[in-house]
Parts: sequence; structure tokens; C-alpha cells
Amino acid sequence: MVTIEDVARAAGVSKGTVSLVYSGKRPISPATRARVLDAAAELDWVPSSRARALATRRSQTIGLVLARDPEIIATDSFFARFVAGAESVLATRSMGLLLQVVSTPEQERDAYRSLARGRADAVILTDLLVDDPRPALLADLRLPAVVVGASPDPAPHPRVLSDDRAAVRDVVDHLVGLGHERIAHVSGPAGYVHGHDRRAAFVDAMAAHGLDPALVVEGDFSAQSGREATARLLDADDRPSAIVYANDVMAIAGLNHAQSRGVRVPDDLAITGFDDIELAAHLTPSLTTVQTDVVSWGRRAAEVLLRHLDGAVPEDAWIAPSRLVVRESTAGAPAART
Amino acid sequence: MVTIEDVARAAGVSKGTVSLVYSGKRPISPATRARVLDAAAELDWVPSSRARALATRRSQTIGLVLARDPEIIATDSFFARFVAGAESVLATRSMGLLLQVVSTPEQERDAYRSLARGRADAVILTDLLVDDPRPALLADLRLPAVVVGASPDPAPHPRVLSDDRAAVRDVVDHLVGLGHERIAHVSGPAGYVHGHDRRAAFVDAMAAHGLDPALVVEGDFSAQSGREATARLLDADDRPSAIVYANDVMAIAGLNHAQSRGVRVPDDLAITGFDDIELAAHLTPSLTTVQTDVVSWGRRAAEVLLRHLDGAVPEDAWIAPSRLVVRESTAGAPAART
Repeated sequence: MVTIEDVARAAGVSKGTVSLVYSGKRPISPATRARVLDAAAELDWVPSSRARALATRRSQTIGLVLARDPEIIATDSFFARFVAGAESVLATRSMGLLLQVVSTPEQERDAYRSLARGRADAVILTDLLVDDPRPALLADLRLPAVVVGASPDPAPHPRVLSDDRAAVRDVVDHLVGLGHERIAHVSGPAGYVHGHDRRAAFVDAMAAHGLDPALVVEGDFSAQSGREATARLLDADDRPSAIVYANDVMAIAGLNHAQSRGVRVPDDLAITGFDDIELAAHLTPSLTTVQTDVVSWGRRAAEVLLRHLDGAVPEDAWIAPSRLVVRESTAGAPAART
Repeated sequence: MVTIEDVARAAGVSKGTVSLVYSGKRPISPATRARVLDAAAELDWVPSSRARALATRRSQTIGLVLARDPEIIATDSFFARFVAGAESVLATRSMGLLLQVVSTPEQERDAYRSLARGRADAVILTDLLVDDPRPALLADLRLPAVVVGASPDPAPHPRVLSDDRAAVRDVVDHLVGLGHERIAHVSGPAGYVHGHDRRAAFVDAMAAHGLDPALVVEGDFSAQSGREATARLLDADDRPSAIVYANDVMAIAGLNHAQSRGVRVPDDLAITGFDDIELAAHLTPSLTTVQTDVVSWGRRAAEVLLRHLDGAVPEDAWIAPSRLVVRESTAGAPAART
């Protein structure tokens, strides 16, 4: 085991000088600094994270607390791609992502308090709720944060924003262009800001075409809720000719449910998803959906936080807009239903 | 901000005594201990993680390094459920899970070395490779670990084991019971121990019925590889009447590809998956698959590690066997094809 003494000896300096090179607490001459770094590289030594954390008052860790049901996290596919994107940036600074999955508001609060007490330098907030208590809690805890997804103005934290509204409008425009008028929406949970925003965007886009946006059923992003919402819509007297789903998993369950009833997709019913999970392109019919670049979300969130930790004034970052991908589940003209 | 001085004053003891209550370095009388804990609770104070980590030489963190492609991580759905299970145990000790996603062997090695230098108390190893270099690396780094899934004997680390072989045998028995003889397997990547084991189990189960186990195509768990493997099998002269897939995503893509060619499932082709993701029950036809309790895997892995860190002799743990769930994709008797 190589120690700091070995490095000091090899560089011809004191242990304290080696420490200073890494802690940055006092300036060190460039020549001495280079000698120490060379010796450390030669001996394949790095200071322990704990020593460095104590020296710099940094834990080199970003926290991510998830309050979703684990099955939904797994199903929604957002999570792993987001984490991979954030990691790709944090790794360049030898920083890690500390993850906690919580199931009650108390656990969630405790998790943030524990992170604020030296376990993390900053946190990433996802799945913002309408009237979310977390931004104020984090401000109280003086824990730097970045908020991913839409959040109400004015925000106490920098945000990573994406314009889902434009994508939802593109979906509705595409369906109207195919001749659809009775278009339904299976939304995400209304309590989430992004679910709320997509739903509002759907209502606006329908109104812009002079169409009735009343056919909205709330889902929870799970396959089961997608099937149930689809069953309700297909059982109704005013059955829609197209359904816009807030994620791909609900859309896939809806597509399969429609087919099991003999409803042909896209001939009798056009279907669109949101996310573009890998499976979407490999269905029969393949799924028209909105491609979201979740890896970029993770990357930008980490970049915003690092700039924040480096002392820059926090600034919002925008993600490239989500993109409509037209496939077979909306192809061709619908049966006339006026 | 409440400090350790405030707690000491409220409890009528010295700062050092408060420290000792939390570090456990020297015994403290129960009465004093109770007074300090009451004062800390009253003032809503806990020692900082950094101070505690330094005192106890523990980072209170478990590392998990993932070397998979992020898209595959997202698609395979294993990840979030596993993390949620591990978290549910770690949370009871106020421990966190530090996650790193790496894309090269060099990054992977650096990640473990960084964890070993005080960033984590122990790590969880998943996706074991045939001839995996990581167990030896971790032994060198003296980093306690638990290995999830099968691993070659003898193992330097305790393992969490599940008997996938029995589940694969159940799948083959089920298909043979329905009259199938030409049964194919779309495997996971052969380089992974679990992929290798499931494939070996398939070969054994076929041999036990006196059937030819030659129809094996290697996939990589992605939808695209599932579709491509299915196309190859359906294009062959000796087309199978049943396909056993190593995960649900490949099975769903295979099912959709078969349907797009006019191959009826299950009448012309029976299909089975592995995992029982939520979507499996909501397909048309619904998917016969093997239910794996991944949340339990995560929980047991964390439990084994914590016992290990507490000083117990490391012991392997077994997960309840995976369970065959029969649904519509294998229902009924196949068309005779002898």
C-alpha cells in the first residue's frame, strides 16, 4: 500500500506539502506541484476520498432521491437513461451519484436532510409535483440543486427545461392532418408538473384546431392503467379515432388491448406514444411516438450543477426539443367518423 | 444551525462525550447515552456524515458499478427494481447506494479503485462475466463485495444465488407437455454467466426429453436482437414451433415480428419470455414468462453485505426460485410439426 509519506519522499517535499497540492488550501509553486503530481502518478497514489472531502469540504457526490414506485421506475425507462447521462459528466470529475429510493414523504425529507449534512454537494430534483415542497426544503437546507423538467416560475434553483408542449402539438397536428377529429389523451398522473403540462398542451393544441379536448383519461404510466384507460375510451359512445398516450408503455398496452377487441390499428384507431423506448420500433404495427433524449437531460442536469458548484451564477439550460417519430400506428387515413 | 456544542450543553456533557456516543469508540454509560440522544432528538441534531464517516472509518455507502450500455439497462428493467430492493435495506441503516455507469474496462477499474479509497464500504457485483476479472480486483483492493447471480466456484465473495435452471426446465417441460418438439432458444449474451447458465439449462432440459437442443440463437437482451433472432429462426427450413427467450423484451419483439409475418401465436408458434415485466400481462396474446423477484435480489444483496460489514463470516444467500407464469402465448396445443 503506497502512502502519502512515500509520495512526499519521492517528490522531496513534506507530507504537508503533498496535502496542500490536493486540498488547494494554500498556493503551491507550479514546480513543486508538478513534482508532487508526477511522484503520485509514478507511485499510482491518489489521496483518499474522505481526506479530500474533509480538506475541500466536498463529498464529490451528487444526490438523487426518487419517490416513485420501483415498478413504475422500471417500466418508465426514464431512470436508467437519465442516470447514465448524468454519470457521463460526473465521471469526468470523479464524482459519483448517490441514489435513494423512498416511499413516504417522511423518508424523502429525511433523505434530503441526510444528504445536506455532508453526504452530497448538491442534488438533482426530478418528477416535480404541482406545489412541490422540495424546492423550499432544499433552499432551507442550503443544498444546491438543479430541477429537471418544468417547474413553476420563479424557481429558487436552476432548471433543465424541455419543450414538451411543442411535441404534443406536433402529435395533434399530425393526427389532424390525417383527418382525425375525435382525438383522446391518456395522460400521466396529474399531480406531476410534466403530466400536467402535457395535458395542458394537448388541450391547447386541440383548441387551436377548433376540436373538443374533453376526451382525457388519467393514467399512471403503467401498462395496466394504459389498458384500463383504453377500455374506457373504446367502451364510450363517442369512441375516439385516435389516442395520444403520455408514455410508450401505456400506448403499447392500449394497442394490444385494442387489437384483442378486433379494433384495427391504425385503420380503426390511431395510436401515439411518448418516449420512443427501444421496443416501440419493433411492434406490429410499429409505434408513432415522441423521441425524448433523456440521456441529454441527465448530462445537462449534471453540467448545470457542476457550474453551480464551481461558483457560477445558476442558469437554466434548455434541452433540444423532443421530436415526433411517425411509424405505422398512425399511418394512412382513418375511417371517417363525424 | 444547531451544533454539537448546543447538544453537549443541553445534555450537560462535554462535546467529546457527544462524539463518543456516535462514534462508539469507547463505552458510555446508558444514562449519559440516553441524555445525549434525547438532547439531540430535542434539538433535531445529527452528526454530519463526514464526521461520522471519519469517526467510524465508514463512508456509509455501498457502490454499484454498471458496465452495461444505458439503453440496455433501461430496456432490461432489472436495474431499477434491483436498486429499489437494495435501497429498502440500506435505508434502515441510513446508508446510500453510490452508482457509476462506465463504458470501458479502464473506467470500470478506476471506478472500483476510487470506491476502495474510502468512497464506499463495500460493493455489489452484478452481470458476472465468464472469467470476470472483478472478483480478483476487489480482493486485491480489499473491498468487501457481494456477487449477484451465479458465479464460478470457489468464490472469494459471498453470493446471492437463484436457481434459473429450474425455471428454464419448467419452461421446456411446459412446452413439451403441450406437444412441442422443435423448441428454439434465443439466449442472452454468452459472455455473461447468467446468459451462459440459462443456455446450458435449456440444453440440459431438451436433452432430458431426448430432444435436439441445436436451435440456439444468441441475442443481447434488446428488442432489435429479439426480432433478428426470430427472423432467422422463422426463415430456417427447420422452423421451430416454440421459442424460449432469455428476457421479455426480446420475446415481445419476437412475438410482434411473428405476427407481422402472419405467423399466429400461439397456434403456429408458442413464445415464452423471462422476467415478467409489467407489460407482459397486457399483450395480445399475453406472454407466458418466468417471474423473477428482482426486488428480493436487491434486498438480499444488501443484507448479505451488511452482515459482512458487521463482521459476520460471509455466507451465500439463496433467492426463492423463479416461477413459470403460463399465459396465452403458449396456450393450447401446437400444430403438429414432426
